[in-house]
Amino acid sequence: MSCGRSPGVRLSEEKLARAALTYLAEPGDSALGALLAICSPAEVLAAIKADMLPGTGPGCGDTPASRAALDRALGRWRARLPGLPDDERLADTSRDGIRLTCPGDAEWPGVLDQLGQARPYALWLRGNTDLRFAYSRSVAVVGSRAATSYGGHVAGEIAADLGERGWTVVSGGAYGIDAAAHRGALAAEAVTVAVLACGVDYPYPAGHVDLFAAIAAQGLVVSEWPPGRHPARTRFLVRNRVIAALGCGTVIVEAGERSGALNTARHAANLGKPLMAVPGPVTSAQSAGCHRIIRDWGASCVTRAADIIDLLSPLSAPDALAPGGGPGRPSQQAPDAGRGPSRDDLDPDTARVLDALPTRGGAGTSTIAVEAGVDLDTVLRCLGRLAGYGFIERCDRGWRLHRS
Amino acid sequence: MSCGRSPGVRLSEEKLARAALTYLAEPGDSALGALLAICSPAEVLAAIKADMLPGTGPGCGDTPASRAALDRALGRWRARLPGLPDDERLADTSRDGIRLTCPGDAEWPGVLDQLGQARPYALWLRGNTDLRFAYSRSVAVVGSRAATSYGGHVAGEIAADLGERGWTVVSGGAYGIDAAAHRGALAAEAVTVAVLACGVDYPYPAGHVDLFAAIAAQGLVVSEWPPGRHPARTRFLVRNRVIAALGCGTVIVEAGERSGALNTARHAANLGKPLMAVPGPVTSAQSAGCHRIIRDWGASCVTRAADIIDLLSPLSAPDALAPGGGPGRPSQQAPDAGRGPSRDDLDPDTARVLDALPTRGGAGTSTIAVEAGVDLDTVLRCLGRLAGYGFIERCDRGWRLHRS
Repeated sequence: MSCGRSPGVRLSEEKLARAALTYLAEPGDSALGALLAICSPAEVLAAIKADMLPGTGPGCGDTPASRAALDRALGRWRARLPGLPDDERLADTSRDGIRLTCPGDAEWPGVLDQLGQARPYALWLRGNTDLRFAYSRSVAVVGSRAATSYGGHVAGEIAADLGERGWTVVSGGAYGIDAAAHRGALAAEAVTVAVLACGVDYPYPAGHVDLFAAIAAQGLVVSEWPPGRHPARTRFLVRNRVIAALGCGTVIVEAGERSGALNTARHAANLGKPLMAVPGPVTSAQSAGCHRIIRDWGASCVTRAADIIDLLSPLSAPDALAPGGGPGRPSQQAPDAGRGPSRDDLDPDTARVLDALPTRGGAGTSTIAVEAGVDLDTVLRCLGRLAGYGFIERCDRGWRLHRS
Repeated sequence: MSCGRSPGVRLSEEKLARAALTYLAEPGDSALGALLAICSPAEVLAAIKADMLPGTGPGCGDTPASRAALDRALGRWRARLPGLPDDERLADTSRDGIRLTCPGDAEWPGVLDQLGQARPYALWLRGNTDLRFAYSRSVAVVGSRAATSYGGHVAGEIAADLGERGWTVVSGGAYGIDAAAHRGALAAEAVTVAVLACGVDYPYPAGHVDLFAAIAAQGLVVSEWPPGRHPARTRFLVRNRVIAALGCGTVIVEAGERSGALNTARHAANLGKPLMAVPGPVTSAQSAGCHRIIRDWGASCVTRAADIIDLLSPLSAPDALAPGGGPGRPSQQAPDAGRGPSRDDLDPDTARVLDALPTRGGAGTSTIAVEAGVDLDTVLRCLGRLAGYGFIERCDRGWRLHRS
């Protein structure tokens, strides 16, 4: 087997392979990350199925030690082959309202590529919102599961305020601060993204089944794990890097000294993203982690949504406005790289949706869909893309043309 | 009248003049500060009494504008001459347990000289503790008068912990956070210093008469205003620079957005001293000022005494260990400048007190007084000096020789 991406591999085959890899390997598996840096997903999948090790040429890291690590990894991955759905079922990624987005897709947030070899193989999505649009102005709001009533109140208020100002709230779907943040965003009828450590259809925590349905209806439930996969302790930590990556910045609302939220905070700091924390009573153990990262890690002390937006506004949409222009990926979609495409570069559906917006004032999503003559799913995706490109913005009545 | 300090002026005459000036001029009077930079206090006092303006030579800032300002100032000062006590009463500075300390005294904290022309003319003291000793390891702990129960609790806990670790708590004697800080220090049987905006014997606030008596018994009540002088709104703001100067760092426990405590914080920052703030619930208006200075002024977020001591320890006793070595003043007392005097340089009483300390373990103040054969006032002052010089330190049983 040769290394290097074969230029002739069709995208659908690559996506199919990536879908399969999410079943076979744990996210963040360094052996698979290293292989995917030099071989295509289809090549790696074929090698796993054939029990044949890839990487025999120079530059493939073929040392005895790495060979032994690959042998062990191959064993791990092959052990899961019996549970791999057949190709037909994998290809039908839109079943049960679940879909897949992969590196290279228009919807793929280029910021995930900053994770290097720990980049997700793919992301499973539940919900119609465009992930890249959701990311364009987003804040990760996370904290303790064992939140106090103070923390829950503050997380909800901040998330609702962020939502009302057009920002997406990203969190982990857990009890406590995460749930309060999601609920605050939902109350503001804003987009919110739950990044889970299990399948997007897996009922964990069981008490959040309705919450996840509401999030999917208004935003996105996201996971690196395939549908049906159960959560595990280590998966939460691996998952946290994606929460940090999908926020333009990360806010910790409450965190004890050993809270997992501090792991997300560390990921945000490592990614060079603004790290913020909400203070609380010094008599509360649930605020001790927040105070520590303010004091020792240089996290910004924020008390309300306006503080957060002030810190993030110059940084919003770092790649959403330069489509296809994620780090290290040559742009093929943006003829006017850095400023986004012109009207002429839009695909027909998106151009039709843009034309459907009134020249003055705003219009609701369904009005725009009727005017453009497209279905609701399409209009949502196109609106997300147009907002990411800077053509339109949210307003009280729905959407309007961007003022500038 | 000539400018420039006359070398022949006796200290007692200079102190007498400074005592008189505290009656005639408001602290921070820029006209008087400018005059004292070029003329001796006795010369200035004589000029006020004679209604003759000083400053006629080059270098005395003798422009028409400054002349007009001096004329106005002279009018202000002379208007208070009828209320000036006679020299005999002024000279008896130890009446009613009240005494005076002036620039150049061994007890004068050199850090006050950093205030430049806004340096206090003198400080009235009530209590037997040595001010310079009190300053050697000190923290200003201030905050809102309208404190919450949370703020009062935290201020008291932090002050008590600081006191137990041998740190002096400096505050403003007001209701709310100030009172809680003083009381916490008193509860820990530690030195605490109240810097008032009225005479050290003036009963304001009336509800704190007993508190001030307790502070005087265990620490110091300090003021730039002479005995009997009542407080005024502007005096609190002028006073704040002395609170900030007398702490090695300043901690704001609770402060609303417009709290006077933020004025003290600004003075601390201007003096280049560590500025700290205790966070609180973001839902509390009384913590809003604390959060703002953490976010916008770079104040350190501290949650307990240990955090404060960690920040201040490298900075403690910046001038107490180099006696007479305040900024810009040549040391006449410290033959071994920067390391403090040797045993041989101590005055007889202080040397006797040092000899009275046991070679192992500690001893209480009265035991040391008996052993040294000095009265209690003398032993307190000598112990303060010895601690400031680094010969001795506090311990559970009172005082012991410094371990190193």
